[in-house]
Amino acid sequence: MYVVLVYDISQEKNGAKRWSKVFKISKKYLSHIQNSVFEGEISKPQLVQLQQEMKPYIDTEWDSVIVFKSRQEKWLDKEFWGKKEDKTSFFL
Amino acid sequence: MYVVLVYDISQEKNGAKRWSKVFKISKKYLSHIQNSVFEGEISKPQLVQLQQEMKPYIDTEWDSVIVFKSRQEKWLDKEFWGKKEDKTSFFL
Repeated sequence: MYVVLVYDISQEKNGAKRWSKVFKISKKYLSHIQNSVFEGEISKPQLVQLQQEMKPYIDTEWDSVIVFKSRQEKWLDKEFWGKKEDKTSFFL
Repeated sequence: MYVVLVYDISQEKNGAKRWSKVFKISKKYLSHIQNSVFEGEISKPQLVQLQQEMKPYIDTEWDSVIVFKSRQEKWLDKEFWGKKEDKTSFFL
């Protein structure tokens, strides 16, 4: 399936560390397309694994992680209205 | 069609003001579901209008706005892994 994963990690309770963990785990499975947005083709078991790995670093009171799932990439069109490339990646 | 709009507005060049404009324009057309993420059912002409309104506030060198478009909402499943409700809305 094709997924888009967006997260908003609060700065509360040492949030910078959680943000970094969530970023790195996402990057293991998906492509980075915007500051806190990843996308990519992923199998169901892989997605479960991703969720399990990420779980310890998500504070369910403060952090938001939303995963949009489409059965096929072609069902999801994408438009870039600003800069296209990701200039934030290089220093992460 | 059903869209998910995600943005990352740089703090460069008075970015806070651009962020606020982009937020308000998005909110006119879509539902706020995460800090910089909106979603909703929207017609093609409305999406064009949204883009036109937003255009002056997007710095194409610094800002990223990505719109994912699905023909139908039912083709896009959604999972919440952190907090579900949006606690950031009330002060915006």
